[in-house]
Amino acid sequence: MSEELRTVWWEADAVCLIDQLLLPHEQVVVRCTTPELVAHAIKSMQVRGAPAIGCTAAYGMALIALQSQAETVPALLADLEAGKVMLDSQRPTAVNLAWATDRLLTKARQLSAEVATPQALAAALLDEGHAVLNEDLAMCHAIGDHGAPLIPAGGRVLTHCNAGGLATAGYGTALAPMRTAFAQGRNIHVWVDETRPFLQGARLTAWELHQAGISLTLITDNMAGYMMKSGKVDCVIVGADRIVANGDTANKIGTYSLAILARAHNIPFYIAAPTSTIDLTMEHGDLIPIEERSEEEVTHLGGRMIAPVGVRAAHPAFDVTPAELITGIITERGVVTAPFAEGLRRVKEGA
Amino acid sequence: MSEELRTVWWEADAVCLIDQLLLPHEQVVVRCTTPELVAHAIKSMQVRGAPAIGCTAAYGMALIALQSQAETVPALLADLEAGKVMLDSQRPTAVNLAWATDRLLTKARQLSAEVATPQALAAALLDEGHAVLNEDLAMCHAIGDHGAPLIPAGGRVLTHCNAGGLATAGYGTALAPMRTAFAQGRNIHVWVDETRPFLQGARLTAWELHQAGISLTLITDNMAGYMMKSGKVDCVIVGADRIVANGDTANKIGTYSLAILARAHNIPFYIAAPTSTIDLTMEHGDLIPIEERSEEEVTHLGGRMIAPVGVRAAHPAFDVTPAELITGIITERGVVTAPFAEGLRRVKEGA
Repeated sequence: MSEELRTVWWEADAVCLIDQLLLPHEQVVVRCTTPELVAHAIKSMQVRGAPAIGCTAAYGMALIALQSQAETVPALLADLEAGKVMLDSQRPTAVNLAWATDRLLTKARQLSAEVATPQALAAALLDEGHAVLNEDLAMCHAIGDHGAPLIPAGGRVLTHCNAGGLATAGYGTALAPMRTAFAQGRNIHVWVDETRPFLQGARLTAWELHQAGISLTLITDNMAGYMMKSGKVDCVIVGADRIVANGDTANKIGTYSLAILARAHNIPFYIAAPTSTIDLTMEHGDLIPIEERSEEEVTHLGGRMIAPVGVRAAHPAFDVTPAELITGIITERGVVTAPFAEGLRRVKEGA
Repeated sequence: MSEELRTVWWEADAVCLIDQLLLPHEQVVVRCTTPELVAHAIKSMQVRGAPAIGCTAAYGMALIALQSQAETVPALLADLEAGKVMLDSQRPTAVNLAWATDRLLTKARQLSAEVATPQALAAALLDEGHAVLNEDLAMCHAIGDHGAPLIPAGGRVLTHCNAGGLATAGYGTALAPMRTAFAQGRNIHVWVDETRPFLQGARLTAWELHQAGISLTLITDNMAGYMMKSGKVDCVIVGADRIVANGDTANKIGTYSLAILARAHNIPFYIAAPTSTIDLTMEHGDLIPIEERSEEEVTHLGGRMIAPVGVRAAHPAFDVTPAELITGIITERGVVTAPFAEGLRRVKEGA
C-alpha cells in the first residue's frame, strides 16, 4: 500500500499532513513537529474529515508524550490530560477528535501501572497512534472490499462531495469501492459532482482520483440528471454524515436530489460509511438537525462575490435522503439493504 | 412602464444598453453613438439574449440610416445593405440578429418608393426600431398576463438561468409571470438557482429581481430538491431555447433535473417562451443537438481555476425535458397543455 494516498502519517518524529487548504493547486506536506502545530493544523482545517482529524489527534497525543519533560509516569499523565484539553478545544464539535484523544489518554492510564519510565509510555502511545490509523485504513479497505462488487459492469460511478481518502487516513469511504475495483483491474470511470458551494468535488475528489490514476470527468451538480438520462451512469455512491435507525441518511446538500434522479432512471444508489456513522438513537431522518451555514459561502466563491450586493442566499449544508431511495449501505462489516432497521442494528453491534 | 427594467433603448440619438458583462457588480449604460459601437456591443456580449440582440440590431440599422451621408434614397439603401452585412457578421448564429436587420432592410426597400428624402426614410426606420422593441415588450407582457394566474397561492416560484428582462428588451419571458403577479400585488418569492457554470441565475436573475423589488433567495443548483422536499416551492417556471413539435423542450443544463424533481414532489413545472421559440419542423427532443461547450467554463470560475490541473470536465450547455414532465407552456398567445402537438401548432400559427 506504499503507493497509496496518505492524508495523515507519522514520519521522522512528526505528524505529517497534506495541507488540504492548498489543494488542488499546491500539494504541500505540513510537518507538525510540536503539539501546537498539530493543534493549528486541526483548527485551521489543514486537515478535515472526521476520521482524518481523529488520526491526527491520536498522533498529537503521542507527540505530546514524546516531547514531555516529565520525569515520572504520573507527571506524564498530567501533561497528557492538559494536552487533551488543548487539542479538544480546537474543534469542539468534532466527535472523532475527542474520541481519539480519549482513547490515547485511556491507554496511557491503563499502561501507567505497567511501564517503568515516561519514555516507555510515550513509545507505547505512538504505537496506539499507529493502531488508530491502521484501523481507519482497514475500515476503508473493508468498505472497498464490500462495495467494489456492487459497481455494475459498466463501471461508471457518480459521486458527490468528498468522502475520499482526504477525509480519512487514506483510501476513503465512498471512494473506497471505486479504488478497490480499480485496483482489481476493472474499468472504472467516475463522474465527479463539483459540489457547490464548497466545491469539495472539484477541489478534493477530482484531485485524489486524478492522483490515483482513476479516470474521472468533472461535472457541475446540475449535469447529473442529464448524464443519467444519457445512459452514462451505472450507479451512484456517496458518503454519509449520519445514518439513523430506519436508514434515512444525512449527507452533503444535493445528495437527496441525486437519489431522486437515480430512482427516476433506475440507477442503484449506495451510501458508503463506517458503522461509526450509524446513530441508532435517532428513529428517522426528519429528526436530524440540518446545519444552516453562512450565506456568504453561496454568494461568494474563493473570496470573490458572485451575486449582487444585498441579495440573500440560503445555505442548508446537508439534506436527508429517505431510506426507500437507498439501494444499499456499504459498511466495513458488510452491505445493509432493506429492511434497514434490522441490518443497521446488526452491523452497528458488530455481529 | 417607465419604472421598468430596460435592457435596450433609444435615447438622444444613440442605442443605449445595460452592459451585461459588468453585471451584477456594476450597472453601466453603454451609449452606442455609432454603428461600430453597436456592432461591438453585440460581438462582445455587452448585450445577450436573442430578443435583446434583435432589438439592438434593429436600432443599429436605424442608426446607420440616421448617420448616413447618402444624398439619395437609393444611396441610403446601399448603405443599409452594407450595414446589415456588417451587423450580421458579429454573431453569425444568432437568429434574431439577422431577422431584425432583415426586417429593417425590407421596410426600407418598401418605403423607398414613397419617401422623398433619405432623412424621411431614416426617421421611418427609427420608428420601425421602436416597433421591434415594443412588440418584444408586448410579447413579454402577454406571457406575464397568461402566466401569472398559474402561480399557485403560495407564490413561491423556482427558476433557473436567466430568461428575464435582460434577455429581452425588458420584462422577460420566464420572469414575466412573476413580474406580473408582483405588479398585481401578490406575495411572490423566487428561488433563484445560481446556474453553474455561467452563474446566469446568481449574476443576472438575482440582479434583475432585486432591482424590481421582488423577494428572492439565491440557492446553489443542488439545493432545489431540498427546497421542494421542505414544501417551500409552489411551482417552477423556466425559459426555453427550443420547443419542438411534441412539446419536448431544450433549455439550460439542469432544467431536466428540475423537471424530474418537480414531478417527484407534485409541483407544477412550466416553460415560458415566445412562439418564435417553437420549432414545428422537429418532431421530438432526441433530435435536438446539444451544444458541448468548453471544459474550461466548468474547471474555471471568473478566470480562476477551481479544479486540479489535468482534470477533464464535461460541459453540455443544454438538456432536453420531455413533454410529459411539463405542466404547461406559457406563450404570448396563451398557455399550451397536453396534448402539446395540437396546442403548439395552434399558437405557432397564431390562431
